[in-house]
Amino acid sequence: MAPWDLSLKDIRTTLVNNCALIVGSMAFDDLELPGGSYQDVVGGSATYASLAACVYAKVRTVAVVGDDFPTAWLDRFVTRGIDITGIEKCSGKTFRWHGKYATDLSSRTTLATELNVFADFDPVLPDSYRDSSHVLLGNIHPELQLRVLEQVRQPQFVAADTMNYWIEGERPKLEKVLARIHTLLINDEEVRLLANDHNIARAARRIRSMGPKALIVKRGDAGALLFDETGTFFCPALPLDSELDPTGAGDTFAGALLGQLTADGSPEPRRLRAAIRGASAAASFCVEGVGPEHLVDMSRELVDRRGDEIARLSQC
Amino acid sequence: MAPWDLSLKDIRTTLVNNCALIVGSMAFDDLELPGGSYQDVVGGSATYASLAACVYAKVRTVAVVGDDFPTAWLDRFVTRGIDITGIEKCSGKTFRWHGKYATDLSSRTTLATELNVFADFDPVLPDSYRDSSHVLLGNIHPELQLRVLEQVRQPQFVAADTMNYWIEGERPKLEKVLARIHTLLINDEEVRLLANDHNIARAARRIRSMGPKALIVKRGDAGALLFDETGTFFCPALPLDSELDPTGAGDTFAGALLGQLTADGSPEPRRLRAAIRGASAAASFCVEGVGPEHLVDMSRELVDRRGDEIARLSQC
Repeated sequence: MAPWDLSLKDIRTTLVNNCALIVGSMAFDDLELPGGSYQDVVGGSATYASLAACVYAKVRTVAVVGDDFPTAWLDRFVTRGIDITGIEKCSGKTFRWHGKYATDLSSRTTLATELNVFADFDPVLPDSYRDSSHVLLGNIHPELQLRVLEQVRQPQFVAADTMNYWIEGERPKLEKVLARIHTLLINDEEVRLLANDHNIARAARRIRSMGPKALIVKRGDAGALLFDETGTFFCPALPLDSELDPTGAGDTFAGALLGQLTADGSPEPRRLRAAIRGASAAASFCVEGVGPEHLVDMSRELVDRRGDEIARLSQC
Repeated sequence: MAPWDLSLKDIRTTLVNNCALIVGSMAFDDLELPGGSYQDVVGGSATYASLAACVYAKVRTVAVVGDDFPTAWLDRFVTRGIDITGIEKCSGKTFRWHGKYATDLSSRTTLATELNVFADFDPVLPDSYRDSSHVLLGNIHPELQLRVLEQVRQPQFVAADTMNYWIEGERPKLEKVLARIHTLLINDEEVRLLANDHNIARAARRIRSMGPKALIVKRGDAGALLFDETGTFFCPALPLDSELDPTGAGDTFAGALLGQLTADGSPEPRRLRAAIRGASAAASFCVEGVGPEHLVDMSRELVDRRGDEIARLSQC
């Protein structure tokens, strides 16, 4: 059953038990930023998304780390109310990414990727996770995204991320994912590649015909576009004078989006628009710190206030 | 006297005589677009800006053309109510630009530029132009922009465009221009170069300290940002499924902006925000045609309707 098919009674009974399930990577990042170089920064899509989502809702995380992953960080998750039962600790090293950003932060180059324990990631959901109401499938192999979906009993809402690598190399599997999700969150290059059309508006129609009711196009500091049954919605990014590190901004956006929808439980499709503003606000906090440092103590009040600021940005 | 210093009486008396003065280039463009190649397309900043501004206000154009420039086009200007007294016809060839766009229209390469009669452009304003209330200084040598300003008696509002070439090569002259204008309209790369700061928010503060009360950052299909005394305003670009040719979109934006402010005569700085929406709407028509073909019969009603559509884009 999709959320827009729920009756008011359904909503009342399910809302109490709404829970966000987040699947993705946990990593060490080595970041070469215009402001300096940083080693062993805890990162990964599940890290950013979970920290953002927990501001709004109960969060359950599924990921894999090596035995070098600091317990202090898992404790930090627990302190934020994140359920870490599904974070598997394997013998070996944690996934590592090494990237260098351009001076204006507008592009980045991957210098090295070490998959390590992430190479054999096979997400198995703890029993306690199977009744999750809202699901975020981070950017992992579409086969694994499908395997996660099979383990969730009756999700009300499923969002997914993906990337060029899967679009080009695993299209049939990815199409199966697309047929089963509500919202796809990708950037404009990925939109063009997936639809094989350089025009975003046409590409969005094509992608929505593959399954997702909603497509969110992430454009970094150029904001986010939503294409869904309500039409087109544009949310600007807040112009910041203190960007430090864009790493994880997209995952923060996705996590905050899922968290809001989980807490909200509204079947109203227009609710997605307000959630996109909150997601953009959360992402703006993310880029103001190195790694997820600004997410670990991000408060709902702060994000809401910044969301209002974003709303005012496009008011005459 | 700046428009925001005008009393209501002043406005009533001046409004009737408000007139937009537009200075810039007129050209033949050879366009290599993803949809095909087009030769001898009439273009240039003054062409696009004048055609957009005349939808709203009385327009006076200053430019230079060669004796190869089609009279039919000048007649078209006259039909639209544009005063062409200031368009000088010189013996020789009209300015020509040859450019090629990327498949996704996001970038372009200049293949050839022939300045021709534009090389000796020395804008002399007809006497009848000197009482113009609103001025748009197109992207020409800052020295010429200054010379135009000296010939206008008491402009209420002056906007200017410029480019990398002048920012790098004619900074002292350009700074004199900046000290005398109300609004600067440039793209994000030019903002970064002019302020020597990759961060747009900081760069905007720096540029506004050089003189302009308002800075409008043109970002193409990523919209436009305004930084002024009222704060920050963001206007999205309408996602189109029928972009053909981005040539002149920025000049159309600038012309429509000037036209609205001229017609409006309001001293209220927030009025600039609404004018930016109208400007974005006009620019969206421009890119749907090759060259200025969609501007020659653009109606106020159509632009207004599209402006409303743009306003709805960011509504929750």
